[in-house]
Amino acid sequence: MKSTISVNTRAGTLVDLLLADADRLRVIATKGSRGETLVDAGAKAIGGLDVGILMADICMGGLGHVTLTPYSGTPRWPFYLTVRSSDPVIACLGSQYAGWALSHGEGKDAFFALGSGPARALAQKEPLFQDLGYKDKSDRATLVLEGDKPPPPEIVDKVARDCGVAPERVAFIYAPTRSLAGSLQVVARVLEVAMHKVHELKFPLQRVLDGVATAPLSPPHPDFVTAMGRTNDAIIYGGLAHLFVTGPAADARDLAKALPSVTSRDYGQPFSEIFKSFKGDFYKIDPSLFSPAEAVVTAVDSGETFRAGQISQDLLDASFG
Amino acid sequence: MKSTISVNTRAGTLVDLLLADADRLRVIATKGSRGETLVDAGAKAIGGLDVGILMADICMGGLGHVTLTPYSGTPRWPFYLTVRSSDPVIACLGSQYAGWALSHGEGKDAFFALGSGPARALAQKEPLFQDLGYKDKSDRATLVLEGDKPPPPEIVDKVARDCGVAPERVAFIYAPTRSLAGSLQVVARVLEVAMHKVHELKFPLQRVLDGVATAPLSPPHPDFVTAMGRTNDAIIYGGLAHLFVTGPAADARDLAKALPSVTSRDYGQPFSEIFKSFKGDFYKIDPSLFSPAEAVVTAVDSGETFRAGQISQDLLDASFG
Amino acid sequence: MKSTISVNTRAGTLVDLLLADADRLRVIATKGSRGETLVDAGAKAIGGLDVGILMADICMGGLGHVTLTPYSGTPRWPFYLTVRSSDPVIACLGSQYAGWALSHGEGKDAFFALGSGPARALAQKEPLFQDLGYKDKSDRATLVLEGDKPPPPEIVDKVARDCGVAPERVAFIYAPTRSLAGSLQVVARVLEVAMHKVHELKFPLQRVLDGVATAPLSPPHPDFVTAMGRTNDAIIYGGLAHLFVTGPAADARDLAKALPSVTSRDYGQPFSEIFKSFKGDFYKIDPSLFSPAEAVVTAVDSGETFRAGQISQDLLDASFG
Repeated sequence: MKSTISVNTRAGTLVDLLLADADRLRVIATKGSRGETLVDAGAKAIGGLDVGILMADICMGGLGHVTLTPYSGTPRWPFYLTVRSSDPVIACLGSQYAGWALSHGEGKDAFFALGSGPARALAQKEPLFQDLGYKDKSDRATLVLEGDKPPPPEIVDKVARDCGVAPERVAFIYAPTRSLAGSLQVVARVLEVAMHKVHELKFPLQRVLDGVATAPLSPPHPDFVTAMGRTNDAIIYGGLAHLFVTGPAADARDLAKALPSVTSRDYGQPFSEIFKSFKGDFYKIDPSLFSPAEAVVTAVDSGETFRAGQISQDLLDASFG
Repeated sequence: MKSTISVNTRAGTLVDLLLADADRLRVIATKGSRGETLVDAGAKAIGGLDVGILMADICMGGLGHVTLTPYSGTPRWPFYLTVRSSDPVIACLGSQYAGWALSHGEGKDAFFALGSGPARALAQKEPLFQDLGYKDKSDRATLVLEGDKPPPPEIVDKVARDCGVAPERVAFIYAPTRSLAGSLQVVARVLEVAMHKVHELKFPLQRVLDGVATAPLSPPHPDFVTAMGRTNDAIIYGGLAHLFVTGPAADARDLAKALPSVTSRDYGQPFSEIFKSFKGDFYKIDPSLFSPAEAVVTAVDSGETFRAGQISQDLLDASFG
Repeated sequence: MKSTISVNTRAGTLVDLLLADADRLRVIATKGSRGETLVDAGAKAIGGLDVGILMADICMGGLGHVTLTPYSGTPRWPFYLTVRSSDPVIACLGSQYAGWALSHGEGKDAFFALGSGPARALAQKEPLFQDLGYKDKSDRATLVLEGDKPPPPEIVDKVARDCGVAPERVAFIYAPTRSLAGSLQVVARVLEVAMHKVHELKFPLQRVLDGVATAPLSPPHPDFVTAMGRTNDAIIYGGLAHLFVTGPAADARDLAKALPSVTSRDYGQPFSEIFKSFKGDFYKIDPSLFSPAEAVVTAVDSGETFRAGQISQDLLDASFG
């Protein structure tokens, strides 16, 4: 049904704009050893907020819309990213979600990254795609990496092969979490994080008609764990999502109640501290923590709206400093 | 003077984008029996917020600009639509206003709809156009209908004839008020509603230089009267307009005082209840109710600003649930 | 390094759009006696908010992004302009800053204007450019003038000569401060004003990676001094800037402390009154007054954020009326 929407072809148009405007956007674009396109948007490159927004647009396969505007709800952190999409299931879960684990080598030279963006919808390596019912067709692929290094040739080959495209037709855009573009593009996942929690809660995705979400721009930090923590906290303690769902009102009420991060056992301290308290074992963190602070769910079939959770200036301050 | 601005030609470009992106925007585009273009944006189609914004842009004849951003003034209803235009008289009253009553048939199969959008400026069927001094010329026409059915062939013929274009050059875009796109495009009339009240108050339209207005995204409701009530309440109890006018400061002060909905006899309860209290007779409702909750009017010739009315979270809650 | 970014070529594309859409944007475009392009955006022309935003985009050499959205922090002045750029040093200081003093003639017929916009980066007449390390190359030039008259032929010749382009390839866009477009484009300098103060404080510009800033839309006033005062007050008492800088945290802390307008001797009354108290001698005003009301500075190398100053609704009210 949705076969005519190609998130890779749409994102490819944005990548072409990024390459044509590399100087203006302060990114460094090169060709890798396999002919792949490599775009550094925040490692050695300056990058910035503008290219961060473009990265978010690319991550959503050209189906999203991101704005940066002031919000007086948390006066110490006044600028918020707001995200909507013409199709949040495909844009956020089919494309933007950082779900493709890529690793190569061992020890000091090991490469590991979670790939996000449209290439995932070609490769279909994640079980999630069985629930989405969306598979892209395109002669080019784009993958976004949260990190400060381009992928090694072996990963380039693997991505190209899994996507069914030539390596010269794959673009990798990378920026570390400590960079402005790198942190912005993670915070711009606030709607995706809400959609992912919806899926984790086993609420049928096809019943989410639409959504819009917002979260504060988090200040970058040079330490990886702290930087990652802040981008997560922007969503967990500062994010707000409004979803529109079909079906019984009771389901929408249950969804709203279960959705916000406050339902999690681990809610209440900066993410980096939670992470450290589990000695860096990501998988010991309660998965239900990954959700916006505040959820508003409208049941369009009954017209009722339910809400739970709340943005916490205190916890944002504890995290952002 | 303004003869070079064609709201239908401009809107036509947006309709072409809508058709090219029908899958992405989740609309259903077909050809009707007269060759007319029919776009379902929320009846059988899913539609959504994105296409709702595009519908609003089309309604304003490509002269408007609509954004969706968070606003902390009414925390339970956090997302607001903001509307501005390069020419609010033409965009809002000459194009966007739902002023063309179209009806055909009787009884169960009767069709009735209020047409909005640029085709009105070709047809010139409403007395309002005598005050606007704007008549469009174009070889295509676009009309937006708040409803869940395409128009019958007789209405297609009538619209084409009145607009002076071939039926194959007419596009109808429709979405019921209960749909996301349908309700959003009504709330996006907040600036138009302010402009219309200005006209009702007999303030000369040519003295309104410009304006910007905002209103909360109302949650859809499956019942037509409640859905319609909510979109009206978004403006009546949640809308805020800032207008810039020429002429004596006293006129601007009087305008600000008379503009907001609070001046109306019927202010104070959800629109659907007012509607029911008049047994569904729309024309018994005090017309002065149709206005934003809050008006800010700047008299540019004296530099003074006047304001009256206030956004009411309580009445939004009473309406939106 | 940044030689491939041409603010004049980029702005030229926007000027072409402005000319193609002159009627829609309600500007008056003519050719002057030297063949130069003259665009009146608010003197005899109506102009408006829309073209004001486009003027701001042109001022920033096509490197900026301006939005107008509601902000509930100062409820009496609800609409805020938000400005970001892909490169705030080039966009704001290299292009947008009103730093090129142009004067011709004497007495009643004297012409004086501060030129802003990309032509400055071709002419390189200001010492500031030595610190920026940016020089544009382009076969066309665009200059924005805050005033109600086009430049006399002698100024046209001088600008063309200094820019190294033919007079027919120079565009002048002008709007008086009392007009909607004229006042909006000044308020849209909120990020530029922050950047300029950064430079005045001798903080190295290359250490400012990025920024985003917001300020309320000020109501125009027919009197020049009051109109100018209000646009300044929108920034001085209503502006808020968030900058991201490299280097020691102590430097960022000092910058945040020194940045906001409250540090100025002259802070505390509407700008027009300050101006009058110095009998209109601009150069007697404490230069440190020219800064946003509130500054947030993130030191990206330590992850710390510092802030000082505050938006003042009272002083906005005192100025805006």
